[in-house]
Amino acid sequence: MPAQHLARRDRLASLLRERGLAAAMITDLVNVRYLTGFTGSNGAVRVAEDGSAELATDGRYQDQAAAEAPDVAVTVNRDLLGALAAGAVDAARVGIETHDLTVDDHLRAREVFGSVELVSLDRMVEQLRVVKDEGELDALRRACEISVQALDEILAGPLVGRSEREIARDLEWAMYARGAEAIGFETIVAAGDNSAIPHHDPTDRRVERDDFLKIDFGARFDGYHADCTRTVVVGQADAWQREAYAVVKAAQQAGVDALREGVLGSDVDAVVRKVLDDAGWLEHFTTGLGHGVGLQIHEDPFLRPAVPARLERRTPLTVEPGVYVPGRGGVRIEDTLVVTDGAAELLTDATKDLLELA
Amino acid sequence: MPAQHLARRDRLASLLRERGLAAAMITDLVNVRYLTGFTGSNGAVRVAEDGSAELATDGRYQDQAAAEAPDVAVTVNRDLLGALAAGAVDAARVGIETHDLTVDDHLRAREVFGSVELVSLDRMVEQLRVVKDEGELDALRRACEISVQALDEILAGPLVGRSEREIARDLEWAMYARGAEAIGFETIVAAGDNSAIPHHDPTDRRVERDDFLKIDFGARFDGYHADCTRTVVVGQADAWQREAYAVVKAAQQAGVDALREGVLGSDVDAVVRKVLDDAGWLEHFTTGLGHGVGLQIHEDPFLRPAVPARLERRTPLTVEPGVYVPGRGGVRIEDTLVVTDGAAELLTDATKDLLELA
Repeated sequence: MPAQHLARRDRLASLLRERGLAAAMITDLVNVRYLTGFTGSNGAVRVAEDGSAELATDGRYQDQAAAEAPDVAVTVNRDLLGALAAGAVDAARVGIETHDLTVDDHLRAREVFGSVELVSLDRMVEQLRVVKDEGELDALRRACEISVQALDEILAGPLVGRSEREIARDLEWAMYARGAEAIGFETIVAAGDNSAIPHHDPTDRRVERDDFLKIDFGARFDGYHADCTRTVVVGQADAWQREAYAVVKAAQQAGVDALREGVLGSDVDAVVRKVLDDAGWLEHFTTGLGHGVGLQIHEDPFLRPAVPARLERRTPLTVEPGVYVPGRGGVRIEDTLVVTDGAAELLTDATKDLLELA
Repeated sequence: MPAQHLARRDRLASLLRERGLAAAMITDLVNVRYLTGFTGSNGAVRVAEDGSAELATDGRYQDQAAAEAPDVAVTVNRDLLGALAAGAVDAARVGIETHDLTVDDHLRAREVFGSVELVSLDRMVEQLRVVKDEGELDALRRACEISVQALDEILAGPLVGRSEREIARDLEWAMYARGAEAIGFETIVAAGDNSAIPHHDPTDRRVERDDFLKIDFGARFDGYHADCTRTVVVGQADAWQREAYAVVKAAQQAGVDALREGVLGSDVDAVVRKVLDDAGWLEHFTTGLGHGVGLQIHEDPFLRPAVPARLERRTPLTVEPGVYVPGRGGVRIEDTLVVTDGAAELLTDATKDLLELA
């Protein structure tokens, strides 16, 4: 989608002019992909204040760069910084990605840029990435659809007697079979006591009757990541499981309902915490509430008490409260949603009723 | 294996004393794992010249850090650098990983370390990692064994009519089924013309009769990566395919035979190039010859013309020459081997005879 990449570079160029920067040296590979379409594992792009761009990579990626970024000049040179500096040595000020550039590469940049002043871009491209275009949302919708369908297949069972690891592999296989290009992140399958561990790597522990089974997973499609968690009971829920589930379900729904253009992320967080607090479960909510999702599984913005950013339309976010009681069990319910000017668009459309499965 | 981690920290401490450094701030997560056993996605460790160590991570990983690094003090603090600096503010000089630390984190380090001089460690831990201990070699052997067995299963067919993508997924599945904890890197399956692309992502292209089929893949086991490539003909090889295969096989064997303690990596490279050059195929060898392999799929040392490092015992390396003829096809043969004082130990023990498969 070269048109989108061009539009993104134009938006970046506009910000560069506002900041008085002649160019931006983009070294974060996710940002390079966002601005050019190039997906190789080594590359950098210089975007100038007039929107023109030059992509540098090494010989392995020459053909791929030309194919993926047909509207950008491609330079093949192992010295990415040296190659790109040549086009901007007359500039007064150039932006660099100080959250990504290493100290060693910064030294190299200082050498090759001579008297050019190098200033931090302050995550400028990350900020551009917060609001998605339609192509991005379509990829996310597809990633979420693949994920939810795969979950349905796995929850059809059998579950009892199977290991966390086997269930994780089956779920991943089901996502691939439905068109996932990759697994978005390491699948979490946590049974019984293990469900109390927020981020649990699947083990050989086998699912037993009446276990909580918590599954946090997602497919990647065209670079975009789905993120979904469901917790079910394999067998019959006891009173404690029912209470834990009900409070997380109510808190999650409150968060989803609060998600809207113009709202502060910290306010969404506060709404969820209040539900958990009123029910006496807040002490067991020990993770963050949610995060942006796109080319990265975790990206700006974050739903946190201390991050009072206003939510913008076309921003995908997760809402994922949970309770985790060590030695006993835990519940998390997580959706990927898109902020709109009305009700949020739900991308991970799987039931949130308490399932008691065989 | 806490004993190994302790021994590794002691080796690092010894190097710190040689360099006159009071401590090392290790921020590269692979190095953190190597020195402590901690596998979380956020953490740093300070190792002092007396071998003592403190690991910092965030609340998500508190329990995991205590379990994985039982012999190291663990501090929970989102400000990793600030937390670890507190234990070294009286030092004269502290080493930092300038190849990993970002410019932003470097600024933060300068703040929290006050008057301490921060100097580059010059990839000190990466150099320690070159020579493996027995536990590491055992993990690598297992990763390679899993990989080779999985390849055997896939090559048993059927192959004709299946897509590159399907073959890649089946191969990955077979590795998981044999105990792989993860796929070591993105599997390359390249059929027909696509085999001419050194690093080709699997597509929906289906294997046809008499295609070259090039498969570059590997399992991860206990953190360690197998790396293996085989190229077969699906059907009957023509004269050109036979010649291409024979020359790569001879070049690869020459490289394997040259691999020995004390030899220069650049000399192994020269031996392989000479075989290709004498046969008139050198122009089609467009990648590097090989690389170290361990906790990372590509790590020091590298087999390159310009890297004249002497090979040490217990160093795993790949030897992977190839020829790539755009529009026609390509062959690569790659093994993972371990340098010894005699013949290299072959870990990817799969046949290198030209297979003509159904």
